[in-house]
Amino acid sequence: MNTGLIGLGKMGLNMVENLLDHRRKVAVFDLSPEAVAAAVEKGAVAAESPDTLAGMLQRPRIIWMMVPAGRPVDTVLELMIPRLEPGDVIIDGGNSRYTDSERRAKLLEQQGIFFLDAGTSGGLDGARYGACVMVGGAKEAYDLVEPLLRDMCVEKGYGYMGRSGSGHFVKMVHNGIEYGMMQAIGEGFDLLESSGYDLDPEVVAGVWANGSVIRGWLMELAEQAFSKDRKLGYLKGEIADSGEGRWTVEAALEQNVSIPVIAGALFRRYRSRSEENFSDKVVAALRHEFGGHGFKANQ
Amino acid sequence: MNTGLIGLGKMGLNMVENLLDHRRKVAVFDLSPEAVAAAVEKGAVAAESPDTLAGMLQRPRIIWMMVPAGRPVDTVLELMIPRLEPGDVIIDGGNSRYTDSERRAKLLEQQGIFFLDAGTSGGLDGARYGACVMVGGAKEAYDLVEPLLRDMCVEKGYGYMGRSGSGHFVKMVHNGIEYGMMQAIGEGFDLLESSGYDLDPEVVAGVWANGSVIRGWLMELAEQAFSKDRKLGYLKGEIADSGEGRWTVEAALEQNVSIPVIAGALFRRYRSRSEENFSDKVVAALRHEFGGHGFKANQ
Amino acid sequence: MNTGLIGLGKMGLNMVENLLDHRRKVAVFDLSPEAVAAAVEKGAVAAESPDTLAGMLQRPRIIWMMVPAGRPVDTVLELMIPRLEPGDVIIDGGNSRYTDSERRAKLLEQQGIFFLDAGTSGGLDGARYGACVMVGGAKEAYDLVEPLLRDMCVEKGYGYMGRSGSGHFVKMVHNGIEYGMMQAIGEGFDLLESSGYDLDPEVVAGVWANGSVIRGWLMELAEQAFSKDRKLGYLKGEIADSGEGRWTVEAALEQNVSIPVIAGALFRRYRSRSEENFSDKVVAALRHEFGGHGFKANQ
Amino acid sequence: MNTGLIGLGKMGLNMVENLLDHRRKVAVFDLSPEAVAAAVEKGAVAAESPDTLAGMLQRPRIIWMMVPAGRPVDTVLELMIPRLEPGDVIIDGGNSRYTDSERRAKLLEQQGIFFLDAGTSGGLDGARYGACVMVGGAKEAYDLVEPLLRDMCVEKGYGYMGRSGSGHFVKMVHNGIEYGMMQAIGEGFDLLESSGYDLDPEVVAGVWANGSVIRGWLMELAEQAFSKDRKLGYLKGEIADSGEGRWTVEAALEQNVSIPVIAGALFRRYRSRSEENFSDKVVAALRHEFGGHGFKANQ
Repeated sequence: MNTGLIGLGKMGLNMVENLLDHRRKVAVFDLSPEAVAAAVEKGAVAAESPDTLAGMLQRPRIIWMMVPAGRPVDTVLELMIPRLEPGDVIIDGGNSRYTDSERRAKLLEQQGIFFLDAGTSGGLDGARYGACVMVGGAKEAYDLVEPLLRDMCVEKGYGYMGRSGSGHFVKMVHNGIEYGMMQAIGEGFDLLESSGYDLDPEVVAGVWANGSVIRGWLMELAEQAFSKDRKLGYLKGEIADSGEGRWTVEAALEQNVSIPVIAGALFRRYRSRSEENFSDKVVAALRHEFGGHGFKANQ
Repeated sequence: MNTGLIGLGKMGLNMVENLLDHRRKVAVFDLSPEAVAAAVEKGAVAAESPDTLAGMLQRPRIIWMMVPAGRPVDTVLELMIPRLEPGDVIIDGGNSRYTDSERRAKLLEQQGIFFLDAGTSGGLDGARYGACVMVGGAKEAYDLVEPLLRDMCVEKGYGYMGRSGSGHFVKMVHNGIEYGMMQAIGEGFDLLESSGYDLDPEVVAGVWANGSVIRGWLMELAEQAFSKDRKLGYLKGEIADSGEGRWTVEAALEQNVSIPVIAGALFRRYRSRSEENFSDKVVAALRHEFGGHGFKANQ
Repeated sequence: MNTGLIGLGKMGLNMVENLLDHRRKVAVFDLSPEAVAAAVEKGAVAAESPDTLAGMLQRPRIIWMMVPAGRPVDTVLELMIPRLEPGDVIIDGGNSRYTDSERRAKLLEQQGIFFLDAGTSGGLDGARYGACVMVGGAKEAYDLVEPLLRDMCVEKGYGYMGRSGSGHFVKMVHNGIEYGMMQAIGEGFDLLESSGYDLDPEVVAGVWANGSVIRGWLMELAEQAFSKDRKLGYLKGEIADSGEGRWTVEAALEQNVSIPVIAGALFRRYRSRSEENFSDKVVAALRHEFGGHGFKANQ
Repeated sequence: MNTGLIGLGKMGLNMVENLLDHRRKVAVFDLSPEAVAAAVEKGAVAAESPDTLAGMLQRPRIIWMMVPAGRPVDTVLELMIPRLEPGDVIIDGGNSRYTDSERRAKLLEQQGIFFLDAGTSGGLDGARYGACVMVGGAKEAYDLVEPLLRDMCVEKGYGYMGRSGSGHFVKMVHNGIEYGMMQAIGEGFDLLESSGYDLDPEVVAGVWANGSVIRGWLMELAEQAFSKDRKLGYLKGEIADSGEGRWTVEAALEQNVSIPVIAGALFRRYRSRSEENFSDKVVAALRHEFGGHGFKANQ
C-alpha cells in the first residue's frame, strides 16, 4: 500500500470509495472519527494520526489531501513534512489558490518532497465514479501518480498541465467558465419562465441535454433540478461563491484580460445575496430627485 | 399670442411658469380642469378645448405638447390637425420614440404643418428654470421656434439636431447615458457604504460635486438625496424605467453597436424589481446538484 | 412516401441523408439543381417544383422546410399553401423568429393546414447523425410528425414545447445561452493563454471535456479547434451573429428579464467586428482632455 | 513659509502656480532641475535637496507630495522622515493605493509625524485653478492643512473623509465611477455616430453640457474634444488605465459588492488594447466547428 488520503469530507470519502472500487488499498486520516469509521466500513485502512499514516505506506508514498483551501492545507503539510522522505509525493486535490500552490511546491522541494497541485472537477458524482483532474508540478511526480489518476478519473479526464500552480490555475479558470455558463443557463430559463408559452423547464432541459449545441452535464443537472420542482420553490435565489470566481477576476486584472461575462456572473451572485441593495437605492433616489419620479417606500 | 401648451402635468406646468417668467403669453389646455386652473393662476390663458386653443393663437401658431408618449400624442395630434393651418408648428416635447416622431412628421407634412420632435431634459427643475432641449425636424420650423427655446432653456442648452426623429433619438441616447452614469454612481456609493471607513455619503457627494472629474448635476442630486437620509432608508431599491433605456438597447441592436454598460445598467434595473429571481434560483439549484452545496431554503 | 424536404443547404442536405439512413423515402426540392442532384445521389427523390412535390406525397403530407429565416420562409409557404390540403403538416425547421411563426401558424390554420415551428440544434453533425428539435404548434400535428422526429433526432433529443411559436422561442433562448457559454469559454481560454504557465489549450480542453462540470459538446469542439492550431492563427477574432442573439435580448426587454451575461456576450460580438471603435475613441479622448494623458496617435 | 511641494510633474507644477496665485510662499523640490526652474520662474523657492527643503520651512511643516504611486512615494518618505519633527504634516496628494496609505500613516505615526492621504481630482485644470481633494488621516492634521486646501480647491471642493486611507479610498471609488461614466458616454456617442441622422457630436455634447440631466465636466470635455475633430481621427481607440480601476474591482471583490458597470468599463478598456483578441478567436472558432459557419481568415 502506497496511497494515503487525508480529508474525508463529502469529496474525500467519495474518492476513497472510488479507489477501493479499483481494488486499491488506501490508508486514510481525518480529524473526525466518524468520517474515518465511514471510510473503514467501505474498506479503507484507518490511520490514527498523520504519523501512523506515513508509517503505513511504502515508498514512494503518495498522499492525496482533500481538505479545505487555505490554512487547513498548510496545517496538514506541516504535520506531514517531517514524516515524509525524499521522493514521496503529496497532492493537494482541493480548491487552493494557485499562488499558494506555487509557494508550497517550493517549500517542499527543499526537502526533496514532490508537491502536486491537482484541480479536481466533476462534483460529488465525479469523485465517486470518475473525476476530472488537472495536475501541476514536477512531471516526474506526475508520472508516478498517473496510475492512480487513471483509476480515479474518467477516461481522458486527467492530464499534466505544467509547472507547479498550473493545475490549480486551470481548475480556477474552469470554475470561472462554470460561473459564466451557469449564469447564461439561469438567464435562459428565466426567459422561458416569464414567456407566455407555459413551458415546462424540465422538458426543455431534457431536450437540450440531448443533441443540442449546449448539451453537457450542467444541462443534465438542470433537468434533474427541475424534475424535483419546476418552480424551484424549495430554495431561495441566493447564490454562494467559493474563492475561485474572485481569483479568476483577480487573475484577469493582473493579466489585463477582458472577462466581462465571467465577472458579470460573479457580480450577479453578489447581487443575489444583497437584499436591500444600496446601489439600487441610490439609483432610485437619484431618479426621484431629478424627475420627481415616485419610489417604492420602505415600510 | 402665438404660443399654446397642451399637457399640464408636472413638466408642462413648470414650463408654462417658466415661459410666463419670460413675459410670454401662453394659452393652455389639459383634460384636467384643476391643472388648467393651476396654470391660469400663474398667468396662463385657459382654452376650453383644443379647438378654442387654435382660435386664440396668431399664425404661425406654435403649439408645444407635453403629454405622455404613445397614444396620447397621437390623440392630441388628431384633435389639433384639423384646426391648424399650413405654416403652423406643433412640437412634441415629451419622451416619444424617435420612430414615432418620424412617422408623425411625415403625416403632418402632408398638411403643410410642421412637426418638431423636441427631446427635453433637465428634470422638473429644468422645466421650471431652464431646460435642455434637442430638436429634430424642418430647420425652417426650428428657426421659428428658436426664440421660444431661448426663453425656455439655459444658455446654449438647446440646439437643432437634424431631420425629424433626431431630437427624440438624441434624447433617448441621453437617457441611455444617464442610466449608465447613475448605475456607476450607485455602485460607487455601495462601495463606500460597505467599506470599513464609516464614510458619510453626503460629505463625499458634496466634495465630488465641486471640482472633481465626475462633478455634474447627478452628483449634486446625490448630495441632496443623502442630505435627507444618508442610509436612504425611506425608499426601496426598486428602480423603475421608462421606455428610453430599452429603446436605446433596441437601437444598439439595430445599429450593431456594443453598449455593454448602458445595457448592464438597464438589466440591473430589471433585476432590482425581481424579488424571487428565477435566474438566481436556477444557478443556486445547479450548484446544489453538482456539488451538494447547501442552499438557503425557502420557508 | 409522405415526407418532403424543401431547402437543401448544408443543414437540409444532412437531414435528408439522415432520414435516408433510417430507410425513409424523401422527396426534395431546392432552387439549386446541384443541391437537388446531390440529394438524389444519396437516394432522395427529386421534385421539379413545389407543385410536383405536393403531388408526389401521400396524405397527410409532411413537409419539412429548411430555408433561411425571413422572406424565404414566406415565399415557400405562398408556393405550397395552394397545393396542400387540410390535415397536411408543414414544418419550419429553420431559425425563424418566434413571432413570425405565430403569425404563419394562424395563417395556415385558416386553411386547415398545420404549421409546426421546429427549432433545430446540434449543428451540421446533428443534422446528419442525430439532431435536437424543439417543436411548437398543434399537439395533434406534433403526434403525426413524432415518428419522423424519432428518426431524425438523438434519443430524447426532441420534444413538444407548446403552442405555435414556442418551438422557435425555445430555440432562440437556446442560442442566447449558447452565446453566453461560448463567451465564457472564450474568456477562460484567453486567461489560460495569457498566463505564464505555457498551457496547451488542446490538452486543457481535452481534460475539461471528460468528467468536468463544464463538459459538453462545446468543450469537445474547443478541443477539436485547438487540435488544428493551438493559437487559432488561421482565423480573425471577428464573431458573426445571426438574428437569434438579438431576438433573445429583445424578448428580455419585452419580458423585463435581466440577462446581463447573454447580452454582454452579444455586445462583445459587435465589438469584435468594430475595428476603429468610436466608443473607445471617445473614452481615450476624454482621458486626454482632463488629464493630459497621452493617447496612441492614428497614423 | 511652511509649505513645501515635492514632485513637479504636470499636476505638481500646476498646484504650485495655483498656490502662488493665492500669495502663498512655496518651497519646491524635484529630481529634474528643469522642473524646479519652471517652478522658480513662477515664483516658488527652490530647495536643492529634501534636506534643504525641511530646513527652509517653519514648523509645523506642511509638505505636499505629488509623485507617482508606489515606490516613489516610499522613497520620498524615507528621505524626508529623518528631516521632519513631531507635529509636521506630510501629505500624499497622488494616486496611491489606500492600503499603502494606511501602512504609511502607521509608520509615520510612530515618529509623531502626521501623514495625510489626499485624493486629488479635477485634472490639470483643477490643479491649476481649483482642485477637488478628499483627505484621510488624523483630524488634527487635517485642521492644520485646511487653510491650504481652501486656497488650492474650488469652494466646497475638499473635505475630511475619515481615518488614514479613506482619502485615497474615496478617490479610488471616484475613479471607478469615472470609468463607468466615461464608458456610458462613449457608448452613447457611438450610437449617435452610427445612426442615420448625421448628427454633429460637438453640437450634441454642447447641448447636453447645458441644462441636461447628464451635464457635468465630462460632457464639457466631450464638447471640447469633438471641437478639434468630430471624428476623433487623431487618436486610436486604445484606452489606457492606471491602477485605480483595478483596485476598485479588487475592493468590490473583497467587500462582496456587485459593480457590473464599473467592472464592465474596465474590461472594455482591456479589450480596446487587445488587437488580436484570443477570446474572440475562440468564439469564432467554436462557431465554425459546430455550424460550419465561415470565418474571416487571417492573412
